[in-house]
Amino acid sequence: MTDAPDVGELSPPQRTLMGPGPSPVHPRVLKAMSTPLVGHLDPSFVDIMDETQELLRYAFRTDNEWTIPVSGTGSAAMEAAIGNLTEPGDTFLAPTNGYFGDRMAEMARRAGGEVVRVDAPWGEPLDPADVADAFAEHQPDVFGFVHAETSTGAKQTNVPELTDIAHEHDALVIADTVTSLGGVELRVDEWGIDAAYSGPQKCLSCPPGASPLTLNDDAMDKVLSREEDPRSWYLDLSLLEGYWGDERAYHHTAPVSNVYALREALRLVAEEGIEARWERHERVAGALKAGVEAMGLGLNPEDDYWLPSLNAVRVPAGVEDGDVIDYVLDHYDLEIASGLGALEGDVFRIGCMGHGARPENVTLVVAALADAFDALGADVDAAAGLAATREALREQ
Amino acid sequence: MTDAPDVGELSPPQRTLMGPGPSPVHPRVLKAMSTPLVGHLDPSFVDIMDETQELLRYAFRTDNEWTIPVSGTGSAAMEAAIGNLTEPGDTFLAPTNGYFGDRMAEMARRAGGEVVRVDAPWGEPLDPADVADAFAEHQPDVFGFVHAETSTGAKQTNVPELTDIAHEHDALVIADTVTSLGGVELRVDEWGIDAAYSGPQKCLSCPPGASPLTLNDDAMDKVLSREEDPRSWYLDLSLLEGYWGDERAYHHTAPVSNVYALREALRLVAEEGIEARWERHERVAGALKAGVEAMGLGLNPEDDYWLPSLNAVRVPAGVEDGDVIDYVLDHYDLEIASGLGALEGDVFRIGCMGHGARPENVTLVVAALADAFDALGADVDAAAGLAATREALREQ
Repeated sequence: MTDAPDVGELSPPQRTLMGPGPSPVHPRVLKAMSTPLVGHLDPSFVDIMDETQELLRYAFRTDNEWTIPVSGTGSAAMEAAIGNLTEPGDTFLAPTNGYFGDRMAEMARRAGGEVVRVDAPWGEPLDPADVADAFAEHQPDVFGFVHAETSTGAKQTNVPELTDIAHEHDALVIADTVTSLGGVELRVDEWGIDAAYSGPQKCLSCPPGASPLTLNDDAMDKVLSREEDPRSWYLDLSLLEGYWGDERAYHHTAPVSNVYALREALRLVAEEGIEARWERHERVAGALKAGVEAMGLGLNPEDDYWLPSLNAVRVPAGVEDGDVIDYVLDHYDLEIASGLGALEGDVFRIGCMGHGARPENVTLVVAALADAFDALGADVDAAAGLAATREALREQ
Repeated sequence: MTDAPDVGELSPPQRTLMGPGPSPVHPRVLKAMSTPLVGHLDPSFVDIMDETQELLRYAFRTDNEWTIPVSGTGSAAMEAAIGNLTEPGDTFLAPTNGYFGDRMAEMARRAGGEVVRVDAPWGEPLDPADVADAFAEHQPDVFGFVHAETSTGAKQTNVPELTDIAHEHDALVIADTVTSLGGVELRVDEWGIDAAYSGPQKCLSCPPGASPLTLNDDAMDKVLSREEDPRSWYLDLSLLEGYWGDERAYHHTAPVSNVYALREALRLVAEEGIEARWERHERVAGALKAGVEAMGLGLNPEDDYWLPSLNAVRVPAGVEDGDVIDYVLDHYDLEIASGLGALEGDVFRIGCMGHGARPENVTLVVAALADAFDALGADVDAAAGLAATREALREQ
């Protein structure tokens, strides 16, 4: 048995987080994290819960009563959505166009679902015609799609068409909005999404730990009329309804500090205005995009599907992705990430999310990349990149 | 659709948290919560993970390599333990002597287990003879017990006897140590516990959000040789092994800030020394116990099973529990809690946990209760209570 370990004071390096998340946290949100706690059943916490739910509805563009933070990271909210809406024997239609579509399929399988797939290449959105074909062939009960694929940097377009197809077949639609909520246009109600989940550490710039989830009445009706309980007690929304609903009954101890932080992060969204925030992400990420394109590096997805919050930038000839990532971390305390799954080694994933979507951050990214490419011997026009980003920012 | 909600600055009341948790958080831990984040795959975070694991092993009194914080609140760690160690068709033996034994049973059922029970009255520990009988009758594969029952204030004694019985029958033992870790004597390795889970917001005085879990090799062997995947992807320990083990592969985004905070809370444990910390809890809670007993209020469990971290104090004649709880909240910003389940209305649950286990806190509790009983007309000797607590603290 060990003696008391001698562990020093917490002093992590000061990073600029421009990977796929966590993104840079606003100082006001960090301050909220350090607020002394009240109990999770305290009368004052009920108000905080109400306010957080109201702010979440605003960010999701929904009137769904059933809109809550799940006590865990984004994958917990994801499994809450999938595990509660998939009953054993249900057919679940999941996309093949990215890493997180595969995760959806895996979670649906564990929930007892029969998983069928609708295909699109990595980096492309689903084609509504393919979704219609998949519905005709498989008659799925639940259809999941990824609005903002963090692995490919592609945005799903034509969302209302997809939800129309699903509803014509009486299926429920689950949207993965982990990398879009608060940064990229998302209209849950108008677009007919029945359930959407997200993470706080992307475009909301909040530390991970309490993760947004919203369900409309159709989705909640299914949850509350299941024949068999969901397989997770922790994520059982019919039980959570007792805590986040009118009753406020004890289920589990809510992550009080993470709710404080999420509330503050969502206040920042409300202060800025959700449309203005979407516009800022597109504008600032556009300057990043202009910069890397001027250096001669393409983005992985086509412009039509470009996801401002997550830029999948092709690795230029002459360098290894890992060397570039290490270089900018070592020289600039700057985090960017490698590709995931099928795109591993082919792209850098550069986030432009929330508090990270600022001119100074994307300027640093382009300058640091330019330096890295120069130092490591990649054949790119570094100076052109910097100029293009500067120009794009000036025009704004 | 709502306009941007106008939600004010976060300003919760300043409570003294002496309920069943969350407990008062040490200022150093609050400060850790507000530390700017690094990425969950940052090389510097690997060191922080290693240190947190080392500190967790120290607090659990274990050498188990597989010792991690689960990304969720205590119930997530609970379901991780139960859901991974219970395969469909396994027989799971759970106790009937408290609220959290019932929760164990419910989670085991959802994992596909056949649940059988071993009985003891609420407020009493399991008798090893009854456990032996239950093993002879049911031959369970997994045996769960609650070391510190937060609903009854009773401590399970004779733990090594229980684990011996289980191991004679080749069963694995899961211990709920939510309200004991870091506050009440707990020796995972010496006592033969195969898996134990806890919460950070009890005797570790850390905000909820990342919850301790430890498994020995026998337990992990079972997890890694399951025939069927666990029903939760999020809590699948074979996948988490990729992140917290040597590989450091991405599974989900760890709650970085909560890990920072847990690390700092565990540093405080290491600085104080785990045995000294157990002794402090017993000493300070003893002064609380002396006070309420001198007022004529019994504790629910017998002295032999008294749990210093959670004092289940009988509600005196002449008052309603809710009126007293509201009174001390209104007049003293002091949180204590009502009974849970079978003891609802019969007891107050008064925590004495971690940073809350200090003379000033228990003195406030006894003084506030004395005032409440006096104001609300309960027939107790309030002055005697205060004197007894004062005496007990002076003797120390």
